[in-house]
Amino acid sequence: MIFQVTHRDARTSARAGVLKTSRGEIHTPVFMPVGTQATVKALTSRELLEAGAEVILSNTYHLYLRPGVKVIEGAGGLHSFMGWDKPILTDSGGFQIFSLAAFSKVRKDGVEFQSHIDGSRHFLTPEEVVRIQCSFGSDIFMPLDECVKYPSEESVVEKSVELTRQWAGRSKEAWRALVREDGRFEKNILFGIVQGGTIARLRKEAARQLLDLDFPGYAIGGLSVGEPNELMAEILSLTAPALPAEKPRYLMGVGMPLDLLEAVSQGVDMFDCVVPTRNGRHGTVFTSGGRLLLREAKYVSDLRPLDEKCPCYACRTHSRAYLRHLFNSEEHLGGRLASLHNLTFFIQLLQSTRRAIEEKRFHEFRLAFERNYNEEDS
Amino acid sequence: MIFQVTHRDARTSARAGVLKTSRGEIHTPVFMPVGTQATVKALTSRELLEAGAEVILSNTYHLYLRPGVKVIEGAGGLHSFMGWDKPILTDSGGFQIFSLAAFSKVRKDGVEFQSHIDGSRHFLTPEEVVRIQCSFGSDIFMPLDECVKYPSEESVVEKSVELTRQWAGRSKEAWRALVREDGRFEKNILFGIVQGGTIARLRKEAARQLLDLDFPGYAIGGLSVGEPNELMAEILSLTAPALPAEKPRYLMGVGMPLDLLEAVSQGVDMFDCVVPTRNGRHGTVFTSGGRLLLREAKYVSDLRPLDEKCPCYACRTHSRAYLRHLFNSEEHLGGRLASLHNLTFFIQLLQSTRRAIEEKRFHEFRLAFERNYNEEDS
Repeated sequence: MIFQVTHRDARTSARAGVLKTSRGEIHTPVFMPVGTQATVKALTSRELLEAGAEVILSNTYHLYLRPGVKVIEGAGGLHSFMGWDKPILTDSGGFQIFSLAAFSKVRKDGVEFQSHIDGSRHFLTPEEVVRIQCSFGSDIFMPLDECVKYPSEESVVEKSVELTRQWAGRSKEAWRALVREDGRFEKNILFGIVQGGTIARLRKEAARQLLDLDFPGYAIGGLSVGEPNELMAEILSLTAPALPAEKPRYLMGVGMPLDLLEAVSQGVDMFDCVVPTRNGRHGTVFTSGGRLLLREAKYVSDLRPLDEKCPCYACRTHSRAYLRHLFNSEEHLGGRLASLHNLTFFIQLLQSTRRAIEEKRFHEFRLAFERNYNEEDS
Repeated sequence: MIFQVTHRDARTSARAGVLKTSRGEIHTPVFMPVGTQATVKALTSRELLEAGAEVILSNTYHLYLRPGVKVIEGAGGLHSFMGWDKPILTDSGGFQIFSLAAFSKVRKDGVEFQSHIDGSRHFLTPEEVVRIQCSFGSDIFMPLDECVKYPSEESVVEKSVELTRQWAGRSKEAWRALVREDGRFEKNILFGIVQGGTIARLRKEAARQLLDLDFPGYAIGGLSVGEPNELMAEILSLTAPALPAEKPRYLMGVGMPLDLLEAVSQGVDMFDCVVPTRNGRHGTVFTSGGRLLLREAKYVSDLRPLDEKCPCYACRTHSRAYLRHLFNSEEHLGGRLASLHNLTFFIQLLQSTRRAIEEKRFHEFRLAFERNYNEEDS
């Protein structure tokens, strides 16, 4: 039992749990900072620990292309390469191959693509993607999948779901073979990924098929790719319950604070999103009162911290006026401090959510958060 | 006595000393990180403390234009605005007005110039520049000066030295007037700046004139502005001894590690330079063995730290291979870590120099450093 649900909300599907990995426990619901290129943009590992991160994400497609598998293996794996001792979840890179690569085509056994960096041609199979992630030493890893654009024709989505199912099966087989060769790989956790676009029938079908493969956890992919928010919530509300209650659920790439609370109420346990770091770099910070656009003139002499309630270094040390000056002057420290603050905010939001579930007050917690939080720029 | 020479080298003019400010002691020789826009680029105050910084620089021209004097005054001064409790030395901005502004012209009482940021027109007098720095709460501040280009005609340099002398006198008067109004300003230390380009006669003349004004410390400006290294050393070797032995000497904007040791041997106590942060941002790091260009392919799998002897976070946590990956991937963390390392290297170089002077082994220390250190890219 790598995952244990410790508390359940009475009114919704929200739950608190613990996911056990060989590099430490992950307390869910959890927000996982994104470190695509073996670095959570602009931040150090010690800052991530300070922000409360228990697990971070990285990306197989990016790391496979640069610095390459050999460099990371040579460094003793991804953890020692990047100086992060706690769990790492690696995405397979399927999403990036189909969205970022200059060219990609599904061939008989895998996918051919052209690097977005230098145009070089590559061919990856689901088996190879598993082997790469195992050699990185990922604690939680993802099978190669195909994520369709929004909107897509039902027939396109159907084909894609079938491909993803086949690849999931081959990924699991590849992992089993690796474990037979070397028992150490048994500690690496392979999730299944549910695709299916915004077609309800295909989401349910995809979930059902993956259950047969009995993964220790399930990711929900292909949401927050441009569909309206209501549609995302709808698809989530029928996908999440189709996944086994005793296993962890990970909603990939979502999202804004209110989306996170909605997804928690649907029974999602794990989240990642580039929003805190990307928005931080551009001068938008998240606070309990909503978003602040720090470049705005109204902050020029505002001596308050970004968020009175936040314990991060930026809030303990600096004012909005100073942060505004940094962004106004194009100084890197601005993006750094705003990223640190935003990650702290997202991580703590889910930690507080967890405590609220444990203490049987999730409903009140969510209502209070939503009352204070203004999704419009405050 | 705000400055005390505690140790003198027997063979050279090198000395160790302590400069006392109301915000703490500065142990000389000292390297002062440059925080032009109220931020040492990409680094936090706590990292500067970790690197061993006892004092940092900022710049009146830049801060006057952005965020403006009112914002900094409103925040309670520059220290609280930027979250740095130890001493700050502010340059007057004379150098920037004449080098960076879109337009500048000396008028009867001061200098008119156009902002390099938005083209707005401004007029500053030496008196105003003193008042601004006092309102920032600078611990050590500089009078408005004129720094000529290299090369410049002797007649141009002569006129400029005369202007700088007049401005120095007016600056001192303005500071005295401020102290009469408010005794607290007495703790702010106003240095004189010796200009004179590369004309030996004018350097000596400038030094002599400033001595009459009896400043508590003297800066040597206008070097490292494009002249050959030998000429800089020559001018330094005749300017430094013309300054009183019992007062601190500050060589503005210099320089590379070997230049620092040469200047220390000439009796200079204080240094600032953008080299550690600027080079760091671009992937060049300084080590006891010389410079490393981290983008070079030879570091792709190099698991050694930047410098085995360095105690900084980057060296304790990461390899050259990881740093190279960050620069190669245009990740901000690369410039951050390299800046932190370089500042640690420069600060520690002068701390080690100081210890060597105290322990009567400056000559051996300098020889050993020069033997190991390769100014060419190693």
